[in-house]
Amino acid sequence: MKDLTFVGMTGSLRRASRNKGLLRCCASRLPEGVRMEIADIAALPFYNEDLEKPRAVHELVAQVTAADALVLACPEYNYSMAPALKNALDWLSREPDLAPLSGKPACLLGAGGGMGTARSQYHMRQICVYLNLRPLNRPEFFSNAFSPSFNADGDLIDEGLARQVSTLMRALADWTRLLKQA
Amino acid sequence: MKDLTFVGMTGSLRRASRNKGLLRCCASRLPEGVRMEIADIAALPFYNEDLEKPRAVHELVAQVTAADALVLACPEYNYSMAPALKNALDWLSREPDLAPLSGKPACLLGAGGGMGTARSQYHMRQICVYLNLRPLNRPEFFSNAFSPSFNADGDLIDEGLARQVSTLMRALADWTRLLKQA
Amino acid sequence: MKDLTFVGMTGSLRRASRNKGLLRCCASRLPEGVRMEIADIAALPFYNEDLEKPRAVHELVAQVTAADALVLACPEYNYSMAPALKNALDWLSREPDLAPLSGKPACLLGAGGGMGTARSQYHMRQICVYLNLRPLNRPEFFSNAFSPSFNADGDLIDEGLARQVSTLMRALADWTRLLKQA
Amino acid sequence: MKDLTFVGMTGSLRRASRNKGLLRCCASRLPEGVRMEIADIAALPFYNEDLEKPRAVHELVAQVTAADALVLACPEYNYSMAPALKNALDWLSREPDLAPLSGKPACLLGAGGGMGTARSQYHMRQICVYLNLRPLNRPEFFSNAFSPSFNADGDLIDEGLARQVSTLMRALADWTRLLKQA
Repeated sequence: MKDLTFVGMTGSLRRASRNKGLLRCCASRLPEGVRMEIADIAALPFYNEDLEKPRAVHELVAQVTAADALVLACPEYNYSMAPALKNALDWLSREPDLAPLSGKPACLLGAGGGMGTARSQYHMRQICVYLNLRPLNRPEFFSNAFSPSFNADGDLIDEGLARQVSTLMRALADWTRLLKQA
Repeated sequence: MKDLTFVGMTGSLRRASRNKGLLRCCASRLPEGVRMEIADIAALPFYNEDLEKPRAVHELVAQVTAADALVLACPEYNYSMAPALKNALDWLSREPDLAPLSGKPACLLGAGGGMGTARSQYHMRQICVYLNLRPLNRPEFFSNAFSPSFNADGDLIDEGLARQVSTLMRALADWTRLLKQA
Repeated sequence: MKDLTFVGMTGSLRRASRNKGLLRCCASRLPEGVRMEIADIAALPFYNEDLEKPRAVHELVAQVTAADALVLACPEYNYSMAPALKNALDWLSREPDLAPLSGKPACLLGAGGGMGTARSQYHMRQICVYLNLRPLNRPEFFSNAFSPSFNADGDLIDEGLARQVSTLMRALADWTRLLKQA
Repeated sequence: MKDLTFVGMTGSLRRASRNKGLLRCCASRLPEGVRMEIADIAALPFYNEDLEKPRAVHELVAQVTAADALVLACPEYNYSMAPALKNALDWLSREPDLAPLSGKPACLLGAGGGMGTARSQYHMRQICVYLNLRPLNRPEFFSNAFSPSFNADGDLIDEGLARQVSTLMRALADWTRLLKQA
């Protein structure tokens, strides 16, 4: 069974972000044979066709191209996505044939208000259609960022939710291996 | 009849953007008693709760607060919104009670691929629910950015589409005056 | 101050439907000067251009045309709308110029699973764009159908939620009176 | 290579429906080793938990359970789905564990107004998340029902579009075989 690499990204930029905490939890709950990197997208400028491609974009392209699947932690701002995450995907989409993304499996998760970033995740799913990403249908993962499930550093400290994260990572590994047989 | 001020914003940052061209067309096709400013949102950083509010945000807040209605030119990137426009709205949404935005009339328009930014505009409409913006239902305005309707500088040069812009501006003025009676 | 008539509809057809219960609660919590009818849409066939318009459609058209605003109780089936409610709106939309609907204020509410029919309501909001209905942005109303907030007959028996219904009805009356000044 | 069975459904009930025409075109443009049935969903009543399951539902459940993949021709009514198609999926979803649907590949296509049923298809994609259907990301298929591409009986008579249908059927067969390896 081939080893897999996941790459995680989130649109939340603050230090103590719970969505960053979710990605750290993902990275610590991987099934055997899977490793995970967390991409740093904070240095990317807003996409602008007039700009020469910045070094940070080249690095992100290389990192995502080398990965087998994406873990997208989707904050919800005003009933839709955080611009920083969308912007990273927009830069990645400018490569010929959407090469870093096209056909890749993905999973979505998020920490937010009462609906746990659901509205943001459904918008993200529409974006995945164009990018030809293949998000898991299930499990879906929604968590309340304003609950004691997270500590002040943004770490997920609720064992029930952490087990859901484990299940999600296992499902993503299975889905990735299934699609890799192609 | 009270004079009205519209403020226009777009998520496209490139110099020759057709969505910027649409905003210029809007500003040149206003009904009597209406003036329009185009906000410059290129200097805003990505929203980050850890940042002190930058001067560019203070200026945008003042400009939008003073306006009677918003004209949102929505590019479509990968089946959803351009991050720069979403980001401007996210910064504006951090003011107490959503004050610069809440209750304001708005209209949406866009230049993009085959569906003329429709997918992006429907995501924007969901955002308007939270921000308590009141977008016109109609007319909707969708235009093909890759047609001869625009010149190389991004100016709208198609008279039929420009007349649609005039109709849209008139509809926004009427809607704004109706809601102002409250 | 002119008296107002609201008309309520829901897509749930079962006898003990909680969404029917929500409509009954609405009708019992109206501000002064407002009356409300609940339309019976169970007898409508599926929309089919080949059919002559059935009597039940004629009756619904008359009832909705006479109303000042719509109260749409939106169940959520499989992350979207209940077909019976969508079908009623589809029949109403076949009248010239969308006359029974166009320009009318509306509010959305629902009882459902964990997100309280949110996914269904956001789809409904997109439909409202075409129908030129003008739904309230807020308050939104989401309730959990599988909680003790409802009794076995589908009646809403939670006083906190019932107060939210009162607030929603007042907001719809205010919104209707504002738009009627046109 | 195992033979495959596709089952097609559409929400349009009229005799000369273009969406029915699209399904007939699909059935005539299948790659080798694939057969396709078109389900008749016109006899289903509106879903109602109080009803005993009608015979037409039992038959549909058997037909879809036996199929390897779904072909969903999605008309667009008022910026969303046709109720008859949604209703068929709602009935199918009441089987234990979503058994007739869960995990099945699918493709979407449609004939409609200017955007070719895009708005309806994106709502359908959200439904697929819950039903655990796995729709193709691409090709997408949008066609204008009011063009000479269709004749008065609803048959697709445009060779370019018919070739797109062939491509879609081949892509669905490939996707189905990939997922079947699991």
